[in-house]
Formats: sequence, structure tokens, C-alpha cells
Amino acid sequence: MRIISSIQEMQSYSESIRKQKKIVGIVPTMGFLHDGHSSLIRIAKQNADIVVTSIFVNPTQFAPHEDFDKYPRDIERDKNVSSMAGTDVLFIPDVKEIYLENYTTFIEVEKLSSILEGKFRSTHFRGVTTIVAKLFNITNANIAVFGQKDAQQAILIQQMVKDLNFDLRIIVAPIVRESDGLAMSSRNVYLSASEREDSTVLYQSLQIAKTMIENGEHHSSTIISEMIKLIKSKPSTQIDYVSIAKVSSLDEVTNFQKGNCLLISLAVRVGSTRLIDNIILTI
Amino acid sequence: MRIISSIQEMQSYSESIRKQKKIVGIVPTMGFLHDGHSSLIRIAKQNADIVVTSIFVNPTQFAPHEDFDKYPRDIERDKNVSSMAGTDVLFIPDVKEIYLENYTTFIEVEKLSSILEGKFRSTHFRGVTTIVAKLFNITNANIAVFGQKDAQQAILIQQMVKDLNFDLRIIVAPIVRESDGLAMSSRNVYLSASEREDSTVLYQSLQIAKTMIENGEHHSSTIISEMIKLIKSKPSTQIDYVSIAKVSSLDEVTNFQKGNCLLISLAVRVGSTRLIDNIILTI
Repeated sequence: MRIISSIQEMQSYSESIRKQKKIVGIVPTMGFLHDGHSSLIRIAKQNADIVVTSIFVNPTQFAPHEDFDKYPRDIERDKNVSSMAGTDVLFIPDVKEIYLENYTTFIEVEKLSSILEGKFRSTHFRGVTTIVAKLFNITNANIAVFGQKDAQQAILIQQMVKDLNFDLRIIVAPIVRESDGLAMSSRNVYLSASEREDSTVLYQSLQIAKTMIENGEHHSSTIISEMIKLIKSKPSTQIDYVSIAKVSSLDEVTNFQKGNCLLISLAVRVGSTRLIDNIILTI
Repeated sequence: MRIISSIQEMQSYSESIRKQKKIVGIVPTMGFLHDGHSSLIRIAKQNADIVVTSIFVNPTQFAPHEDFDKYPRDIERDKNVSSMAGTDVLFIPDVKEIYLENYTTFIEVEKLSSILEGKFRSTHFRGVTTIVAKLFNITNANIAVFGQKDAQQAILIQQMVKDLNFDLRIIVAPIVRESDGLAMSSRNVYLSASEREDSTVLYQSLQIAKTMIENGEHHSSTIISEMIKLIKSKPSTQIDYVSIAKVSSLDEVTNFQKGNCLLISLAVRVGSTRLIDNIILTI
């Protein structure tokens, strides 16, 4: 596995690979890699000749009060995990080279960036789409793999790719979960033992929704009430949102119709740790 | 000269050229080509193996009250002019394919987009940087040529290219002028005979500035006063701005210092036609 930190070196290397008519895949991460990331890397490897995994804790997607400074980092372990999963190039750029002095350019996917997560993290997606576009340009990738855990992020990035005509295919990979259902996340490390236990209600509430829909319930409000009831049964939790929306537009759905493809998503603070999770269902 | 209108065809063609290790150059235009455009195409041809000239009157860079609908168009003449100048591929996309239904993604170069022209045309540069990024992605170009007449646009695009890590070199080509000094522009066709005559004060005022600076004047206010006096001597004119700014930052300069590289720029309405012009000087 080659490690590159210079943008210019990454760009030249990718250009040389593309000229050999090989496929370049990119897996953008913020590091502190877990089995979810390994799964993304493996999927990239199945779809590309050369897999670039990037590690960059992107300051522009954190608000001042958020956890940028304390976001977990372990670069040595990341090297092992990414190499084991099949990374060919580990790209670890320096923040000063990514955001040069007088940096001023931002990409915004309007509407989609201001709902759900965007309501609670107003500049988050602007930071995400901007860094992702930069990584696409730096790695000149043909494919990019993102996790479904950040479902809204994946939808936004697909919209950006379509709108800005990036010549690149997005693959969205399934969520990898702990044995009790908790979606893997670098932020799970923040949870105390009791919070970790309480956090299983996120996935359980999604399972309740799935079961209710399978049993014929088609009013969002009835389903969301049940989900909220379960989550609130754990006093360490505080709900930011529980949403049932169309995958295509992220518009909230009140009554389901046959053929609807739904994103059921939620954000819940467990203690001081903010967790998100979701499932996608076709009615 | 090949004519392409489909985005996918343009993208595949460029990708195949790049794989042959050839250099692709793009000259983005809004059509109604004049000698200024021909000069951009010739410069592109000197720096690239394959020159793509695009013709697209971009709706997102016009405000509702501006001249999008009446912007001059003559596609048959454009084909001749661009072919004569050395265009290999004329890319004429359809507006419905460029801005698909539910289009929502925009690129903004903050600060630089809100001063000078941006003060009078608040969403103009957002439209420009967005369409230019799209054209870069569609043509996968290695170089792009822009005219210095739109000096602020060229500076913004250079900032975007640097910030978003486009792997592409920008060439800024000198202004081409009519024999009496008027900068060539597709909009000159709007001018009546008398307005056409009055419009020469734009370049004359820039020449006054140049002479004053060469003679040792280093207060912007003194120079700008003289420029305004000359322009106002023609009653058909109305000044939007006259500016002396650093090229690097577009910050206004009040006192020059040795080594300053200055952009002297102006926007003047002559009758109902809005014209811009500029010169760049190093003190």
C-alpha cells in the first residue's frame, strides 16, 4: 500500500493510472476506520483496479460547537485496517494544503442540504459536498463508494455528481452493524457502557417501523409515534428527528402508496453523542 | 470540425482523447462569436491538441431583468467563425440537458463574487462558476482559455480551479479591440450609431489612467475622478463603477506602491447597453 500526502502527487499518480485505462476507485473517510469502512473498501476493490482510501477529518463540515477537535484519530491503526481491506493508495492530505490561505469556494446542493441533518447542522453538507468534489478532482476517480449510514449525504453527493457532470459512478454500500444492531460509527467510541446499551433502541425503532409497514400500516405518524415511544423509553436519549421520506426527493411522506421507496431515518443524541441510522424500504 | 450536442458523447470523446495522451483545450463561450473569441480559440490551439469551443447562453448567470432572452445568437455564423479559428469540436449543448429538472447544485467563490460586477449582478458569478465547472467536467479539459475582458470572471475561475483542485490550467488571453479601442463584445451589437461613438470613452478613460500613472500619479481618487469626468462628458453614459484594485485580491487600492499589479476596471451603461472594460498595469 502506497501512502500519499501531496495533492500533486495524488493527482499525477491517478492521471497515470487512468492513462493505463485502469479504473480508479475512491473511498473518502474521516479515518478511525471500522468494519463499515473495510466493507466500503472491499466493495471499491470489486469495482476498480486501484482503490484510493482517503483519510481527512474535514473541518468545513463541522460547526464550531461540534466535535472536530475531539473527533477520534488513530492513523497507525487506520493504515493496517485500510491495507487489510484492499486499499492500494492511502491518501492522507494535510489540512493546510486542502484549504489554502484565502480558500473561498464552496459547493452547495440546495434544498437537500437544508432538510433533516441540514436542519440541525446548517453548514455541514456544504462542507461535505465541497471536500468530496475536491477529492474527486484530486483522485480523478471513476467510481466512489459511500456508506448508506449517511444516507442523506449519499443522496446529496449523487445529486451533485449528476448536476455538475462529474464523470464518475457512485456506489452506495449497505450499513454494517454490530451484533446487537447498532450501526458502526467512529463516534460510537464516545459512548459510555450504559449509553452503548441504550443506543440499541435506534435500530430497534427502525425494525419496529419495518414490521409495522410489513403488517400494512401506511400512516407515517402512527409509525413515528411508536418509534419515538421506544427511543424515549431510554432516559439518556434526546431525539433530533425521526423521518419517513421519499428516497428520491427526501420529501416527507404522510401516507404510503404502493411502489414508494422510503428512507426511514433518525438522529438521536445518546448522552452527548449524536448518532444517526436509517433503513430504506420499498412498499 | 465535429459538432457535438450530447453531454455523454462529449464526455466519452474527451475521455478517449485524454487516453491518447493528447491535451484537450476548452474555450467556453456564449456564442455570437467575434474576433475576440477567435483569438481565444487560436491561443487554445497553440496549447492543446484538440480544441473544444462551447456555445451556451447560460441562463443561470443572467438575472431576471437582464438580457438573456435578447442575447444575440447566430449559430450558423458561429460554426464558420469557430471552425476558421481552429476549433476541433464545437459543443452546443441543450439547456434542458445542462440543467435537468430538479437541478440544485451551485458553486460559489465567496467574497470575489460579491464585489465589482457582483455588486450589480448578485447571482451572476455563481452562474458562471457553476457552468464553467460543468464544462470542465464534461470536456475533461487540460487547459481552458478565458478573455481578460471579463477580468473578474477570469480571477474567480482561477480561484475556483485552485480551491476545488481542478487538474487544469487557465490561460487568460488579452482583450481584442476595435480600431478605435472599444473592447470587442457580443453586446456591442446593441449599440446605436451614436452610442457606438460615445462608447469609445471607456477605453479612452483607461488610457488616461495609464498615462497618469506613468506620469507618477499614485492616488486612485485623482485618477478615477479624471476617468469619470471623461465618461460623463457623453450624456448617453451612466457609470456603474470605476475601480482600481489589486489583481491578486480585487481589494480596492487608494495609494499605489512600487510593484503593485493593478486591475483598472469599469462598467458603464451606454444607452441601455451595459459595457465593461479594463486594463492591468504593474506599477
